[in-house]
Amino acid sequence: MPGDGEFGLIARFRERTASSDRVAIGIGDDCASVRLAGGGAVLVTTDMLMEGRHFRLDEAPLPSIGRKCLGVNLSDIAAMAGIPVAAVVAVGLPRDRAAEVGIGIYEGMERMAEEYGVALVGGDTNAWDGPLVVSVTVLGEPTGRGPVRRSGAKVGDAVFVTGTLGGSLLGRHLDPRPRLREAQSLHATVDLHAMIDLSDGLASDLPHILDESGGLGAILDAAAIPIHPDARLQSDRDGLSPLVHALGDGEDFELCFTVSPGSADRLVATPPEGITLHRIGTIDGGPGLRLRLADGLVEACRVRGFDHLAPRSG
Amino acid sequence: MPGDGEFGLIARFRERTASSDRVAIGIGDDCASVRLAGGGAVLVTTDMLMEGRHFRLDEAPLPSIGRKCLGVNLSDIAAMAGIPVAAVVAVGLPRDRAAEVGIGIYEGMERMAEEYGVALVGGDTNAWDGPLVVSVTVLGEPTGRGPVRRSGAKVGDAVFVTGTLGGSLLGRHLDPRPRLREAQSLHATVDLHAMIDLSDGLASDLPHILDESGGLGAILDAAAIPIHPDARLQSDRDGLSPLVHALGDGEDFELCFTVSPGSADRLVATPPEGITLHRIGTIDGGPGLRLRLADGLVEACRVRGFDHLAPRSG
Repeated sequence: MPGDGEFGLIARFRERTASSDRVAIGIGDDCASVRLAGGGAVLVTTDMLMEGRHFRLDEAPLPSIGRKCLGVNLSDIAAMAGIPVAAVVAVGLPRDRAAEVGIGIYEGMERMAEEYGVALVGGDTNAWDGPLVVSVTVLGEPTGRGPVRRSGAKVGDAVFVTGTLGGSLLGRHLDPRPRLREAQSLHATVDLHAMIDLSDGLASDLPHILDESGGLGAILDAAAIPIHPDARLQSDRDGLSPLVHALGDGEDFELCFTVSPGSADRLVATPPEGITLHRIGTIDGGPGLRLRLADGLVEACRVRGFDHLAPRSG
Repeated sequence: MPGDGEFGLIARFRERTASSDRVAIGIGDDCASVRLAGGGAVLVTTDMLMEGRHFRLDEAPLPSIGRKCLGVNLSDIAAMAGIPVAAVVAVGLPRDRAAEVGIGIYEGMERMAEEYGVALVGGDTNAWDGPLVVSVTVLGEPTGRGPVRRSGAKVGDAVFVTGTLGGSLLGRHLDPRPRLREAQSLHATVDLHAMIDLSDGLASDLPHILDESGGLGAILDAAAIPIHPDARLQSDRDGLSPLVHALGDGEDFELCFTVSPGSADRLVATPPEGITLHRIGTIDGGPGLRLRLADGLVEACRVRGFDHLAPRSG
């Protein structure tokens, strides 16, 4: 929450939404943060996943669909370096297989909820004549260091990503591993200036950090971008370069974050245990996201991610 | 959250859901209540509304659909005598009218959010080939007296409803008036033992109180059940009695609650200002919900409400 394609619509309401002293972080980040009367704050994020858009019932095992629907929301909590606490689930089940599909996806969600220590506290179950649709909302808490926003990047920051990118459609998109532990560990180690999770693809998601941080730019070093083996497999199949897949495929559910050059050097010298990190570029005054190629040439990075409101292309 | 028809599925997971010290109220009430590390608690409820099930795009103005989608969730907060604070909205928009439909329903939600002091803090907007689907999650807070559960009814309690019931399909179902002010006012005046909002109809919703309170029963006085004029209009059209409509139509979004006989007498003698209240019956040992007719005969009350998982009847 919220993805790229919806930007026009969300932006419209962002401007008009009355500010409230209850809203610590509103529309435009991976989670909102709501202040409670007791003095605490709660992080909240919601994502709706739908048959034919985010999964196909005839291709994916039902528990995997459930895992994905919960996992993408947990990934949003990770992007704020938060701690997930509870989830509610609303589903619209295809009428002819309602019980089977409902039980299957709940089972996948239940297992993932247990793995990540999240309580499934409620839901709304409907059968209808439409395709399967699943909407999950996760509540979380910031750590003592507070939530990490998209908006804190500074000129000169180093850009990092966790893991390796691209080719998730070969299967990983159904099995997100929300980087909660990684985010909390990084948050405890260095001062994270800005962070986002990679749902639409690096080339689409990093620009949200640039925009929210006041219209900054970034140059990424093409050779430094970590390519997942599945991006190479996809490349073999479709002839697009592995780099294009790494930048544009999306649904990696890895983290992209920026830190000061000093923090960057420390992370590279002694990365927190068990976390795969790559330093891939530098924040500058812009404009926009650019790519430094092997020959030293710098060009605008125009690869677009998955756009939820775009007409479907073949 | 959760409705009647889903009961089989929700019950299945209710048994299996690991208990957590974070869950003050879990599956099986109008809202869940989650304990936060800071010491406070947050109420959370979610409802998914879908084209052809809860509204029809060709019959309802778009802002009304938006109002309904937010309103049914606010009604769940009212049922706990809570205070709504923030909402997130996930939508699946029909691709051919995505922007128009999105803007229309958001406008209705925005207006209602302002009326009830709720902040719209985020969302997820998708276009797809399926019908319109809207999933809203509302966060709230209990008052200092705590949330009112479904489970606190006692033998001898008086049963009350707010407002008048039945015939909501003539239009009121699209314009829920969540009884937030009423619930808070009642909660401050008397000790509310149990409460629920009427979404599926009194004959379907009151049994949730009976079940959750340990398998109690209730006798309602048929002559005391307040009939909405629209229930009479519906009766003129379809020949079913106005009482059947009042008991079974659902989507009244009024409150049903139980209090001690002493509290009941006080409420009848001096009802809180501006609240329409009717004392309609008495909780007993059961079994089940029964109706005392004009001739003094008592019979089982079998009128069923709107069942979200039932096959659609004509």
